[in-house]
Amino acid sequence: MPETDDSTLPVTAADIEAAAARTAGDLRRTPLWRLPGAAFGVDCAEVWLKLEQLQRSGSFKARGMFNRLRSAQRDGQLPAAGVVIASGGNAGIAAATAAHALGVRCEVFLPEVSSPAKRAALAALGAELVVTGAAYADALAACLARQQATGALLMHAYDQPEVVAGAGTLAREVEREAGLPEQVLVSVGGGGLIAGIAAWVAGRAQVHALEPPGSPTLHAALAAGEPVDVEVGGLAADALGARRIGGIAWPLCRRFVTTAQLVDDAAILAAQRRLWNDFRLAVEPAAALPLAALAAGLVRPARHERVLLVVCGANLDPATLSA
Amino acid sequence: MPETDDSTLPVTAADIEAAAARTAGDLRRTPLWRLPGAAFGVDCAEVWLKLEQLQRSGSFKARGMFNRLRSAQRDGQLPAAGVVIASGGNAGIAAATAAHALGVRCEVFLPEVSSPAKRAALAALGAELVVTGAAYADALAACLARQQATGALLMHAYDQPEVVAGAGTLAREVEREAGLPEQVLVSVGGGGLIAGIAAWVAGRAQVHALEPPGSPTLHAALAAGEPVDVEVGGLAADALGARRIGGIAWPLCRRFVTTAQLVDDAAILAAQRRLWNDFRLAVEPAAALPLAALAAGLVRPARHERVLLVVCGANLDPATLSA
Repeated sequence: MPETDDSTLPVTAADIEAAAARTAGDLRRTPLWRLPGAAFGVDCAEVWLKLEQLQRSGSFKARGMFNRLRSAQRDGQLPAAGVVIASGGNAGIAAATAAHALGVRCEVFLPEVSSPAKRAALAALGAELVVTGAAYADALAACLARQQATGALLMHAYDQPEVVAGAGTLAREVEREAGLPEQVLVSVGGGGLIAGIAAWVAGRAQVHALEPPGSPTLHAALAAGEPVDVEVGGLAADALGARRIGGIAWPLCRRFVTTAQLVDDAAILAAQRRLWNDFRLAVEPAAALPLAALAAGLVRPARHERVLLVVCGANLDPATLSA
Repeated sequence: MPETDDSTLPVTAADIEAAAARTAGDLRRTPLWRLPGAAFGVDCAEVWLKLEQLQRSGSFKARGMFNRLRSAQRDGQLPAAGVVIASGGNAGIAAATAAHALGVRCEVFLPEVSSPAKRAALAALGAELVVTGAAYADALAACLARQQATGALLMHAYDQPEVVAGAGTLAREVEREAGLPEQVLVSVGGGGLIAGIAAWVAGRAQVHALEPPGSPTLHAALAAGEPVDVEVGGLAADALGARRIGGIAWPLCRRFVTTAQLVDDAAILAAQRRLWNDFRLAVEPAAALPLAALAAGLVRPARHERVLLVVCGANLDPATLSA
């Protein structure tokens, strides 16, 4: 476990250790695929792919959701009303997966624009769907009102300490298997994943934040000196599409993230296709930002270095990979 | 390295060691994913998935093809005419991949029924296509005639010692990473993969051969006491569709394979779908036989045992996995 001297940080390595112990029976240890840099045409010692798209629920989000539910269970604070979340994406799927595993009710609030495929996936996990409002903000408002009315446990997609600590177990898992690499590349939406990784790594490796131009939450925060809202568009409208970096993620990113860079949508889609064509990894666009950034030279590892690419999710329609 | 006392076997552990050394720079070390049996609803200690569908060329076939080419190169027997093969499937793709990597010409002979998608994949690898005849046998005849005329190196999909030894490096890789499991489940077409694995394991674990009803080459050989032709049909018409167990595979299978069992097409397709839905592994039907057999109880590991499922290929149209 790394040691950090700053007790003011919202999530610490100790929180991540506790999360790992708490969720050991729930989560999968996902494969770490170690390849020579040459496999990607990069002049570095090794490229590591953390195949987290193989996690339960199809993304890293299960780590945080199971940790939040198990924490509440330990504290005797898992209400009969169950859990509520506003999300049509991976967070909703992960929350429904965790709730189902613990035998807890789960209500998922979705805007009317959400796709039938996402609704069907959530329903298949036993979630109760509430489709309301034109936009995500409307679904969120309805979710918060329900939480107030029923006392259900609110699950946030990224901005809760248990969610960030759960995400951090990914970095702990990598380190226990293979040590820390010199460079870590990870995509950012609301910042839950990178914050958990940053909290674990705590300056012992370079952590690079990669964002799509359609949701540059960390860029905007770094420019403004504090979290601010961004306009969501492009690819990010479907995933990674947070409007603002999380309040928990912000101090962790400010302290431990080395660079924050934008990866354009065309490069993201090209990397997604390359992961299928050349490596038979079926992943969603958000999972392809690390490879896209490496391929574009946005991060240039030294010859002796190991680079970790976090492959974060695979909730996609596989037909989109068809030639 | 295991020791076997039978010098009459066509492929030995020493051949496999040599193949591994010869192809180390060509092949990927594919991930071994170790999960608790409970992840599959099976009461055994662990289920291991060898994710060989992530191998170069999208299947285990690259192991044999690179070994055959590197062996010929070492012996100064890589002719200017290059290599020829009759295959519209994974063997052809792997041969084209290996030939391209070594800068050698590759001619692939295909019957007229071969799909445009397969032809496009081969052409993209730089292979020269010869589409001829109504059936595979016609393409094979044309391939053999070309080999006689030009002196090109003939690549066989499964029945050459270098091809079997190359496939055996998969088992060696598993053992070096994690030791040998108690049970090994592997699908059989012409028998190249299982023969290589059997040659390496050499009785130190139980090896189970799994065949589709549409291409029961090992069953038929065991029943007849020698390799005999079978009728090819069903799912196997597209893959695994060998007509007869290889002459090299036969003595290795007879000596070292514990059980040979049939897995029906519906169970294969259900396991393929489960690997995508629950584990985000996009694989071809042939790669799903091991899980199908485990799920159906055709192999029943003891509580303390580890079971290896060889996930052998992912050359599929991902649209076929769409819900």
